[in-house]
Amino acid sequence: MTGRKIINDPVYGFINVDDPIIMEVLKHPYYQRLRRIHQMALAQLVYPGAVHSRLHHSLGAYHLMNNALHILKSKGVDISPEEEQAAKLAILLHDAGHGPYSHTLEGVLVKNKSHEDITLLIMRKMNEQLGGALSRAIRVFSNQCDKKFLHQLVSSQLDVDRMDYLIRDSFFTGVSEGVIGYDRILNMLTVHKGELMVEEKGIHSIEKFLVSRRFMYWQVYLHKTVMCAEKMLVKIIERVREIGAESPSPVLNNFLTGKNDHRLFEELLDDYCHLDDVDIMYSLKVWAHHPDKVLSTLSKGILDRNLLKVQYFPQPVEKDLVKEKRDLAMRYLMVSEPDAHYLAFTGEAKSMTYNPTGEHINILFKNGEVKDISKVDHPLINQSLFGTTKKFYICYLNMNVHVEKINTI
Amino acid sequence: MTGRKIINDPVYGFINVDDPIIMEVLKHPYYQRLRRIHQMALAQLVYPGAVHSRLHHSLGAYHLMNNALHILKSKGVDISPEEEQAAKLAILLHDAGHGPYSHTLEGVLVKNKSHEDITLLIMRKMNEQLGGALSRAIRVFSNQCDKKFLHQLVSSQLDVDRMDYLIRDSFFTGVSEGVIGYDRILNMLTVHKGELMVEEKGIHSIEKFLVSRRFMYWQVYLHKTVMCAEKMLVKIIERVREIGAESPSPVLNNFLTGKNDHRLFEELLDDYCHLDDVDIMYSLKVWAHHPDKVLSTLSKGILDRNLLKVQYFPQPVEKDLVKEKRDLAMRYLMVSEPDAHYLAFTGEAKSMTYNPTGEHINILFKNGEVKDISKVDHPLINQSLFGTTKKFYICYLNMNVHVEKINTI
Amino acid sequence: MTGRKIINDPVYGFINVDDPIIMEVLKHPYYQRLRRIHQMALAQLVYPGAVHSRLHHSLGAYHLMNNALHILKSKGVDISPEEEQAAKLAILLHDAGHGPYSHTLEGVLVKNKSHEDITLLIMRKMNEQLGGALSRAIRVFSNQCDKKFLHQLVSSQLDVDRMDYLIRDSFFTGVSEGVIGYDRILNMLTVHKGELMVEEKGIHSIEKFLVSRRFMYWQVYLHKTVMCAEKMLVKIIERVREIGAESPSPVLNNFLTGKNDHRLFEELLDDYCHLDDVDIMYSLKVWAHHPDKVLSTLSKGILDRNLLKVQYFPQPVEKDLVKEKRDLAMRYLMVSEPDAHYLAFTGEAKSMTYNPTGEHINILFKNGEVKDISKVDHPLINQSLFGTTKKFYICYLNMNVHVEKINTI
Amino acid sequence: MTGRKIINDPVYGFINVDDPIIMEVLKHPYYQRLRRIHQMALAQLVYPGAVHSRLHHSLGAYHLMNNALHILKSKGVDISPEEEQAAKLAILLHDAGHGPYSHTLEGVLVKNKSHEDITLLIMRKMNEQLGGALSRAIRVFSNQCDKKFLHQLVSSQLDVDRMDYLIRDSFFTGVSEGVIGYDRILNMLTVHKGELMVEEKGIHSIEKFLVSRRFMYWQVYLHKTVMCAEKMLVKIIERVREIGAESPSPVLNNFLTGKNDHRLFEELLDDYCHLDDVDIMYSLKVWAHHPDKVLSTLSKGILDRNLLKVQYFPQPVEKDLVKEKRDLAMRYLMVSEPDAHYLAFTGEAKSMTYNPTGEHINILFKNGEVKDISKVDHPLINQSLFGTTKKFYICYLNMNVHVEKINTI
Repeated sequence: MTGRKIINDPVYGFINVDDPIIMEVLKHPYYQRLRRIHQMALAQLVYPGAVHSRLHHSLGAYHLMNNALHILKSKGVDISPEEEQAAKLAILLHDAGHGPYSHTLEGVLVKNKSHEDITLLIMRKMNEQLGGALSRAIRVFSNQCDKKFLHQLVSSQLDVDRMDYLIRDSFFTGVSEGVIGYDRILNMLTVHKGELMVEEKGIHSIEKFLVSRRFMYWQVYLHKTVMCAEKMLVKIIERVREIGAESPSPVLNNFLTGKNDHRLFEELLDDYCHLDDVDIMYSLKVWAHHPDKVLSTLSKGILDRNLLKVQYFPQPVEKDLVKEKRDLAMRYLMVSEPDAHYLAFTGEAKSMTYNPTGEHINILFKNGEVKDISKVDHPLINQSLFGTTKKFYICYLNMNVHVEKINTI
Repeated sequence: MTGRKIINDPVYGFINVDDPIIMEVLKHPYYQRLRRIHQMALAQLVYPGAVHSRLHHSLGAYHLMNNALHILKSKGVDISPEEEQAAKLAILLHDAGHGPYSHTLEGVLVKNKSHEDITLLIMRKMNEQLGGALSRAIRVFSNQCDKKFLHQLVSSQLDVDRMDYLIRDSFFTGVSEGVIGYDRILNMLTVHKGELMVEEKGIHSIEKFLVSRRFMYWQVYLHKTVMCAEKMLVKIIERVREIGAESPSPVLNNFLTGKNDHRLFEELLDDYCHLDDVDIMYSLKVWAHHPDKVLSTLSKGILDRNLLKVQYFPQPVEKDLVKEKRDLAMRYLMVSEPDAHYLAFTGEAKSMTYNPTGEHINILFKNGEVKDISKVDHPLINQSLFGTTKKFYICYLNMNVHVEKINTI
Repeated sequence: MTGRKIINDPVYGFINVDDPIIMEVLKHPYYQRLRRIHQMALAQLVYPGAVHSRLHHSLGAYHLMNNALHILKSKGVDISPEEEQAAKLAILLHDAGHGPYSHTLEGVLVKNKSHEDITLLIMRKMNEQLGGALSRAIRVFSNQCDKKFLHQLVSSQLDVDRMDYLIRDSFFTGVSEGVIGYDRILNMLTVHKGELMVEEKGIHSIEKFLVSRRFMYWQVYLHKTVMCAEKMLVKIIERVREIGAESPSPVLNNFLTGKNDHRLFEELLDDYCHLDDVDIMYSLKVWAHHPDKVLSTLSKGILDRNLLKVQYFPQPVEKDLVKEKRDLAMRYLMVSEPDAHYLAFTGEAKSMTYNPTGEHINILFKNGEVKDISKVDHPLINQSLFGTTKKFYICYLNMNVHVEKINTI
Repeated sequence: MTGRKIINDPVYGFINVDDPIIMEVLKHPYYQRLRRIHQMALAQLVYPGAVHSRLHHSLGAYHLMNNALHILKSKGVDISPEEEQAAKLAILLHDAGHGPYSHTLEGVLVKNKSHEDITLLIMRKMNEQLGGALSRAIRVFSNQCDKKFLHQLVSSQLDVDRMDYLIRDSFFTGVSEGVIGYDRILNMLTVHKGELMVEEKGIHSIEKFLVSRRFMYWQVYLHKTVMCAEKMLVKIIERVREIGAESPSPVLNNFLTGKNDHRLFEELLDDYCHLDDVDIMYSLKVWAHHPDKVLSTLSKGILDRNLLKVQYFPQPVEKDLVKEKRDLAMRYLMVSEPDAHYLAFTGEAKSMTYNPTGEHINILFKNGEVKDISKVDHPLINQSLFGTTKKFYICYLNMNVHVEKINTI
C-alpha cells in the first residue's frame, strides 16, 4: 500500500506506480479479472505470441498516459495533481467492461451494451467501494470533465489506448510493421483551446500511425483465419442458445439462457464481473463432447485449431457458392439445412482507419490554424486512409480435414 | 498439408516449416493442447507479459534446432535428412508430456512420473496414429539413437530447449538480463566423437549463458512472489485431496480423487491429454466459493492476486516464526491447527546452474583436448556457478490484507 | 582465406560468409575504402547515431541477398551456384562507386558520372586484378544477365539495397517508423517469366514498405537541417572551385581544380579509389581557417554544427525573402552580393516514393495475372504514393548565432 | 536557445534537453569535437557497427543521469535544481578531454596526462567563456562537491558513464551479451550517508552488470584483432617520432615532434581542442605512401584492414617465437632488426572487472548494514570477478598476406 511499485514490461521496460489509490485499483478483483481476458481473443491461433491480457494492455496505456501528461505539463499545459490522477485511473480502467473474448463476443453475450457502457457501470460500482475516489476519473472517462483533452487522451482517434494496443499487439504478434513512433507522437501532442492537438511537424507521424493501424487491421485483427475462428465462437454461442445447451459455468449460463431476459443488466453486473475467457474456454472443452454435432464440431474446431476454411472476396459472396458449401456440410456431417448455416456462412469484415465524422485528430499549425487531419491539404496525406474498407468472407467446413479428423481423434 | 508454412514469432522473426510430417504434428490435438499450458505457470502474477504457452516455446526450440543442424552440417557433420527430421520432431514434442501448470504441478497431479516420462508415452501413442512416422524421433528423444549429439541437442545442459526458454522467458517478462547470445552459441557448437561440444572460443559465451540462467532463476523462476503463488497452487491440490473436494472438471477429478489410485497411468493417458491450465483455472473459480475456508482463501488468493506474504531466508526458517504465523491464521480465519499448515508453511527453493555430474557441457580445445566446462582452468570461469544454491522460504497469511478482503469482496 | 567468417551485425545478428571469392572481395582496399564513407553523409548532425558506413550497408544488403536467394530456391526457382555467387558479389560491390559523402557530392566532385557508372568501372578494374572472378557479377549488376530477376534483386524499386538501407538507417537513427517487415517481404518474393514479382498476399507489405520509405525521406533524408548541412557542403566545393582554393589533400585537389578537366575520368579512377570522407572532413578543418570568409564560415559551420537557418515552403521561395537574407549576409559578414549567394540560397527538395515509369514492382496474382503495384485496383493501395513530392527551401545565415560565434570562438 | 530539444537515440528512444545552459554546452565546439572521436577507436575493424562517437555516448550518459536523479529524488534524496544541473553538465562533459582515438592514444600523444585531467582543464576553459556557469559542475566532476553521490554517479565503478558505454557498445557492436538491465540498476540506486549505494535486492543486477562488463572486455574491447589494430596505431605514432616524420596536420605535429617538449600542456590546450580522429586518419592516408617501409606498412595495414597476425597466450610469449617473427620481418621486408620490433612485438592485455581497492560499489542491506559488493557473503557473488585478468599477445607480420599485398595494390 506504500511506496513505489515497479512493473517489468517487455514493451516499455519499467512501468512505475506511486499513487496509493492507483495501487488500490490495481489490486481490485475487477482489475485482476482482466488477467483472464486475452487482449487479442483468438488471434493467438495465427500469431502464437499474441496471448497478452487486457490487464497488461491497460497497464501499458496507463504508462503512456503518464508520459503524455508529463510532456503536456512540460509544455505549460495546466493539469492539477487531481486531474492527473483522474486521467490515469480512467485509462487504467477503460477496459474493465470487457467480457470474455472481448470484441469477439461484445454485443453477443450482453446485447445492447457496449463495453464502454459496462466500464462505466463497473467504475461506478468500484467508486462506491472506494469511497468516491474514482468520481473525477468517471467524469474524465465519460467526457464530463472541463478539460476535454483529458478525455481525448483516454478515448479519441489518437488516444493512448490505441497507441498502446498497436504497439503491444505488434510486439506480441511479431508483426513489426505495426510499430509506431509513440515517443514521437506523444512529444507532438499539445493542447489548444482545451482540446488535444498535434503540432504541425507531427503530421508525418500521424499518417504513419494511421497506416500502421490499417496494416494491423488487415494483417492481424481481420486476418482471415483469426476472423474465422472468432466467427466460429460467435456461432457456438448462437448454437448454444438455439438448442438450449448449457454451459458448465452457472455464471456464464446467466448470459446464455433466456431466463434473465427480463432482468436489467445492472442486476447481473456482479455475475458479469466474475466472467472471463476461462468460462468460455472451459465450456468449449465440455461442448466438444456435446451430442449436438454442430456444437461439438465448432467447439472442437477451436480447441484443436481445426478451423473452418475461409476466403475473402472484394464483393458479396455468390449465393451458389454458399449453397454448395452448405450442401456439402449437410451431406458429410448429416445435418439439416438450417444446421448447415452454422458450418457454412458468410458476412462482411470492415475497417475504418480514420473516421472523419468521429472525434477528430486535429493538427495545430504554426500560424495558429487548426485542421482535421483528413482535411489537411498536404501532398503526403493519403486520402485513401479516410474511408471504410470492406471485404466479404465465406467460412465453410473443410471436408478433407474435418470429416476425417472428427472420426478419428 | 503442402508447401511451406511461415509462423510469426516476436522472438526470432519467422519460423519456417516445410516438412509434411512436421505439419501433421503441429496440427495434432496433443500438440495444440500445449496452447493451453502456460510456459511460466503463475510467473505472470509478477511479470504480466509472461503469458506465453508451451506450444510457443516448443516452436521456438524447433527453430533453434533448425539453425543448429544447419550450422553443424555446414561444419561437415554428417546428418541425414531422416535424422534431421527426427531431431526436429523430438524437440517439437519434447514438452508434450507437461500437464496443467507444468513444473508447478509436476509430480503433484501424477506421482512418480516426470513430464519426460509422459512425453515418451505420448510420443509413442502419436506414433501409432501416424503410422510409425515418429519412431526415429522417439529414439532421439530417449537417447537410443546412434548419434548421441542429436539427443544432446534435445536434452542436455546446453540444449535448444534451455536456450529457447531463457531467450523467450526473458523476452516475455521483459527481464533483459536473461538475454543470451544464442546465435553465437549455436555457431560455436561442433561434434567430436559423436558428442556435442563447444569450440574453445565459445567459453565466454557459455559462461554468459550459465550466468544468465542463474539470474533468471532468482529474478524470475524463483522470485519469491512467483514461488509463493505456485506453492499456493500445490497446497490447493493437497487440500482438495484431503477434504475430498471435487473439481467441476471430471477429467481433472480423475487425477484428484483416490478412485484411480489402483489404475496404471497408461490407462489414464487419454484423460491426461485432455487436461490443461483451463481445467485448473476454472476449478479455482469454483473453489473460490467452496465452504472450506482454506480452499476458498487459497483459490481466491490466486485469482485475485491476493497472495500469501512470503520471505526468503539463507537458513531454515525458525520454528517459532512458523508457529506464530500459524497461530495468527488459526485466530483470524478460525481454522484448526492442521488447517493452518495450509496458510503458513515453509520449505526450500534451490537452483543448480550447472550440474557437474549431469550431461556435461564439453569444450573442445584447439589442440583436440576435451574438458567439461566446470573443469576448465581459466581465469574467467567462475567456480561458484557449479553448485546448488538454496534459500528457505516462509509463506503466511497477510492479516491486514486477507482478512479484510475476504470479508468485503 | 578459408572456412567461414561470421560478422556481428546489430541489425541482423550474424552475417555469414563462406565463399573464398567473396572473402577476397571483402579484403580488397576498394571495398575497405567504404568504411570511410558514411552511409548517411551529414544526417548525423541531426541523428547522432547515424554514423554507419557504406561498407556496413553493403554487408547488410549482401545478407538480405543471401536470404532472398535461399527463399527463391526453396520455391523452386532455378539458380545455379555461379549465379548465386554473382548476385552476392554484385550487391556487395553495388556501392563501390560512391565517393566522399556519397549522394551529397554525387555529380559535384565528378560531373556526368553517376555512382553506378563508377561502380561499374571499379568492378571491371577489380575483375582484372581477380582474374575474371567478377565477370558474371558485372553482368548481373549491369543487367546483362539472362536471369533478369537477379539484376532486379540488386537494383530495382524493391531491391535488397533499398530494403537494407531503410532498415539500417531506421535502426541507426532510432526512427522506428522506418522499420519494414523485410522478412515478410522476402518471403513474398517470387519469380515469374524471369522477372522478380511479389505474391498477391504481399500487397500490404509493399504498401507499408513504400510508406516507410516516404516517411524516411521527409523525416530523415530530407530533414531540413540535414538537407541544409549537405547543401552547405556543396556550396563549399563550389566556393573552393570559384576562388581557386586548394585542399590539403592532393588527391582531392585533382577533382577540385580545373587542371584535370581535359582528362578522361578513367585516368583519374585510381585517385578516385583513394578518396573518402576523411579527405573532405580534413579539408574542412583546414578551410575553417581560410582567409575567404565565405569558405571559412561554411566550413566551420559544418564542423561546429553551427548551421545556416533553413525553412521549407510548399511553393518556390519569394524573391524578396531571398534578397533580404542576402542583404543581411552582405552587411553582417561584409561580403559582396555574389558572395552572399553562398550564405543565403534557395532550391527544391523532392522525393519520389514510387516511380511508375521506372523498374516496376510487379504483383503476381493467384490467377496468374501480373500488375504494376501502382495499377492495382485495391482499396488499400494509396494512389498518393505514386508521384513526386516537392518542397522548396531557403537557407540563410543565422545572424544572432553566426556573427557572434564567428567572432568569439 | 529556448524551449525543449528532443534528440533521437536508437538506444533509449528520445533524449530530452530543456535547460538553456545545457543547450549552450551542446552547441560548443569543444563538445561538437566529440562527434569526430570514435567511442570505440578501431573496434569497428571487427564490429562494423561500432562507429558511434564520444558525443553520442556523452548524450546517452546524460540521459541516464537524468533518470538516476529523477529516481533518487522520488526516493526522497535531497537534490537542488542547481545540483541537478551541475551533475548533468559534469556527465555531458566527462569525456571532453579525450583526444584522437581516445584510450588507444591516451598517454601516447600527451604524456603524463589522463583524459580526466584534460577534461578538467577544458571544463575550466569553457567555464571562463560561459561566465562561471560550470563552476558547480567542475566541483561535481572533481569530487569537491558536498554531495559525494553526485560525483559517484559521474565517476565510480557503477557510474552512468559505464552503464551507458556497456549498453551502447553492446548495441552498436551487436554483441547482445553485453546488455545490462540499466533500468533495474537505476531503480535500485539509493543514497546513504551521502554516498551512492545499491539496495540489497539489486545484488543480482550488480553481479550481472559486472559479468557483462567482463564479457565485453574479452569479446570486444580486448578482442585480439581490435587490440592488434590499436597497438599498430601506437606503433605508428612511435615510428613517426623516431624517424622524425611529419603529419600533414600542423596541429597534430605539435604533439608528435619534440619541438614542444619544453612547453606546458596548458599552452597547447587550444591546439588539443582542434585535434580529433580525422587528423590521425588523414595522416595515415598520407603515411601509407611514406618512403619508410615500417610506417607505410603499418599505416596501410590499418587503412586496408590488412592487420598484423595476432595470438593470445596465458603466459608471456616465448622469446624464441618473437625472434623468429622478427627475423621473418627483416628478411621479407628487408628492414633492420630494430625496425622489425615495429612489425613483430609482444605485450600484455589486462582487464579488471571490479577493483576492490577503488571507489566501491556498496550494498545497503535492509538492516542498515553497508558492504562492498566484493565483501558480500552470498552464494551468488562470484569471487572470481574481483581480480585482474591478464593475457599476453604477440603481433607479427603475416607473410602470406602482407608481402604480396604490399607489392600489388
